[in-house]
Amino acid sequence: MYTDDSLVLHTDAYQINMIYTYWKDKIDQKPVVFEAYFRKMPFDNGYVVFTGLERLVKALTNLHFSDDDIDYLRSLDLYEEDFLLYLKNWRLTATIRSALEGEVMFNHEPLIQVDGPLVDAQLLETLLLNIINFHTLISTKAARIASVTDGQPLLEFGTRRAQELDAALWGTRAAYIGGFDASSNVRAGKLFHIPISGTHAHALIQAYQSDYEGFRAYAKTHHDVVFLVDTFDTLKSGVPNAIKVAKEFGDKINFQGVRIDSGDMAYLSKKVRVMLDEAGFPNAKIYASNDLDENTILNLKSQGAKIDVWGIGTKLITAYDQPALGAVYKMVSIDGQNTIKLSNNVEKISTPGKKQIWRITDKKDGKSEGDYLTFFGQDPNQVETLHMFDPNHPLLSKEVTDFQATPILHDIFVDGKLVYDLPDIKEIKAYAKNSLDNLWDEYKRILNPETYPVDLAQDLYDAKNDLIQTIRQQIKEMKA
Amino acid sequence: MYTDDSLVLHTDAYQINMIYTYWKDKIDQKPVVFEAYFRKMPFDNGYVVFTGLERLVKALTNLHFSDDDIDYLRSLDLYEEDFLLYLKNWRLTATIRSALEGEVMFNHEPLIQVDGPLVDAQLLETLLLNIINFHTLISTKAARIASVTDGQPLLEFGTRRAQELDAALWGTRAAYIGGFDASSNVRAGKLFHIPISGTHAHALIQAYQSDYEGFRAYAKTHHDVVFLVDTFDTLKSGVPNAIKVAKEFGDKINFQGVRIDSGDMAYLSKKVRVMLDEAGFPNAKIYASNDLDENTILNLKSQGAKIDVWGIGTKLITAYDQPALGAVYKMVSIDGQNTIKLSNNVEKISTPGKKQIWRITDKKDGKSEGDYLTFFGQDPNQVETLHMFDPNHPLLSKEVTDFQATPILHDIFVDGKLVYDLPDIKEIKAYAKNSLDNLWDEYKRILNPETYPVDLAQDLYDAKNDLIQTIRQQIKEMKA
Repeated sequence: MYTDDSLVLHTDAYQINMIYTYWKDKIDQKPVVFEAYFRKMPFDNGYVVFTGLERLVKALTNLHFSDDDIDYLRSLDLYEEDFLLYLKNWRLTATIRSALEGEVMFNHEPLIQVDGPLVDAQLLETLLLNIINFHTLISTKAARIASVTDGQPLLEFGTRRAQELDAALWGTRAAYIGGFDASSNVRAGKLFHIPISGTHAHALIQAYQSDYEGFRAYAKTHHDVVFLVDTFDTLKSGVPNAIKVAKEFGDKINFQGVRIDSGDMAYLSKKVRVMLDEAGFPNAKIYASNDLDENTILNLKSQGAKIDVWGIGTKLITAYDQPALGAVYKMVSIDGQNTIKLSNNVEKISTPGKKQIWRITDKKDGKSEGDYLTFFGQDPNQVETLHMFDPNHPLLSKEVTDFQATPILHDIFVDGKLVYDLPDIKEIKAYAKNSLDNLWDEYKRILNPETYPVDLAQDLYDAKNDLIQTIRQQIKEMKA
Repeated sequence: MYTDDSLVLHTDAYQINMIYTYWKDKIDQKPVVFEAYFRKMPFDNGYVVFTGLERLVKALTNLHFSDDDIDYLRSLDLYEEDFLLYLKNWRLTATIRSALEGEVMFNHEPLIQVDGPLVDAQLLETLLLNIINFHTLISTKAARIASVTDGQPLLEFGTRRAQELDAALWGTRAAYIGGFDASSNVRAGKLFHIPISGTHAHALIQAYQSDYEGFRAYAKTHHDVVFLVDTFDTLKSGVPNAIKVAKEFGDKINFQGVRIDSGDMAYLSKKVRVMLDEAGFPNAKIYASNDLDENTILNLKSQGAKIDVWGIGTKLITAYDQPALGAVYKMVSIDGQNTIKLSNNVEKISTPGKKQIWRITDKKDGKSEGDYLTFFGQDPNQVETLHMFDPNHPLLSKEVTDFQATPILHDIFVDGKLVYDLPDIKEIKAYAKNSLDNLWDEYKRILNPETYPVDLAQDLYDAKNDLIQTIRQQIKEMKA
């Protein structure tokens, strides 16, 4: 499309301007740790399904300033030539740790940690957030939808309503990991080996100007057929003609069922079910697609709708009810010293220090007791009894024994070198399923889920409080 | 990233499956006309600002099935080898007409018209909708926001919250056309020649562990400075230190102002204004950025907030309050015969026939009287008095004289060849401004705007009604 051999400028201008200051002031190589996390659960859900790592890894591998990039920056007339040369020679040297794709994660936990020179940490922020915010949002929405369908097939149909091409492509990958079974997007099928799905649209019926002729033409040329029955009138024309053609073709086709794309889905699906059954097609499935999401699905099910396969578009691919996750990326340490971002809003105060997340599971059933954040390098498996307490309400606490603590952040890049083998998408999907299975149902219901414990180790909790007090004191003295 | 030399598979699987039927049945070259339009105004706005054409043109230029694409389709084991060869040799031969980027458009109007062989029309649908749905949505949201700022500068800051990379990139282009002045996205600056903007983030202050040291370091290395003042405490630390540094550096820097990114914007901005004025910086501007949109801006203004420059992120780049436009793409004619898509919902019934949109303007003041849809090839300029009536309420009518009728759809591709010179982005932005200026204010207010007239020529109206009656009769007979 455009000459664009690089994603390094896919960042906010202030990152380059800050790096210019760091470079001039010779602190660009100062060791820092930044962590990406989100504060508020999307959709008031009880968890997120983390995704986006593969996209990020591909974007960071061989990331560099191309000649085009340097020429553009030069044209801004803001930077010394030596700085442009410095950028030209820049290569990633940071260590990057991340949760794995498909991992169930919670608010106020680091999803990704960038541990390296200040310049690297600053340069990656925008690209990193742009990717994980969207991917994680969509896989979470997909998991919510998948949680209400009792294992019925879910098809992603949203490309035409996605927010530009990347969102359609990567969104359907995220949806597949989160629990969908197939996508309509052929390019996603090609690039990611996702199963693809789709038969025909209203246009086919219009091209033949009749349900009967359109279905016949399709049946003559395809083995697997799903007839779309609502072009003119579902009950009077679509379904009777679908049945007529299915009978005519008999064993020559695999009549998988019919799709309803408009009208009263509850009413129509029940009527259509009876028509199909009476015509001798009890195995033909009813597909539904029309602005569906987890709430409409639950509602249709409560009305006894006879729908077997769900095609989900707009509401999934745009995360319609909350189209942004809002993960942020904050410095938690510099030169080995913990740092914090204060705010008048308690929820917005970051937790200082380079951290590890430990998933605490019961050794007997493998179910999660909660997550436990420590300073990086500590290992809760060293103690027999873990004192877990709610950092916002420290009196709410429990003693956990007979537990397994599993680290959640894994080395992806070490000193700029990729050390992580990207798993196959089917492995990621299985990982997500397992991660969700280990979570109690109470955390997974779509309305008012229980809050999963994300607790701080005592020394981390103390360090956070001390730092808050220190800075507040400094501000007070500043005033005086 | 991935081997992906082609966008032709960025489509729904059913398109390929339908094309297979058309090809086998030898109707793939049948002449058809499809039109893309939307039914419901986004954000209950009174208009949309159409964008996305340049992206679409680039995507369609040289569109073809690559060897990779064919290999992938072959691997599905669904299609004959001859069909794959046919796809391999496929090239666009359709004529494509479109509204120009920046044009103000309305619901139920064709934004783009594909006039050519059935195969082309079917193949382009998904890609076309994916692009124009998003671009038009964002430029419209941008225009809404721009309409409430009294000409104050608007900066697009949303990359990290955008729905993947394309949305960030093309979204900021759409926002620029719709009324924004600059973007933080450096890549958008490079690729589209959009002015970029950004100074520093909280991280700079954390890197120096003090507002004062951070501001000083930035001022030492940049001429134009905007200090972010809310890292620790806006009024007690951020602003006093910004003023201190601005005084220290005097003429050595261009102290453009301060940015507030959290807290009570109305209260803080008024306090900060007084502090800046009293310190002798009456020209320093106050920048605000924190989940803003047209409603929060209006609200802040009504509270007398002293904000001069607006940084807008999430709410713009995701079109947060309505993240999908929902344009559809329907066959309106085949083999020269008008076709229609029926629905129980009157709003969902398409208007048949290959059409042109005419913008009817008053010859005296150039203001729009309404839009007038005709069959393609007719020209309302031939008549002296135009009878315009509301197609949903035909009694609501007016006679218009002394008018100019300007066609809105322009040839972009003729028989597959690009015939349109893509304008410069500054021309597009100016075109959008002019198009909005020609619209009465009543259609442009952000709450409860008047409905702009989109009327049908009498013969078009009659043809639509006749077709509805004919099909309803056919369905009735089918039942009997």
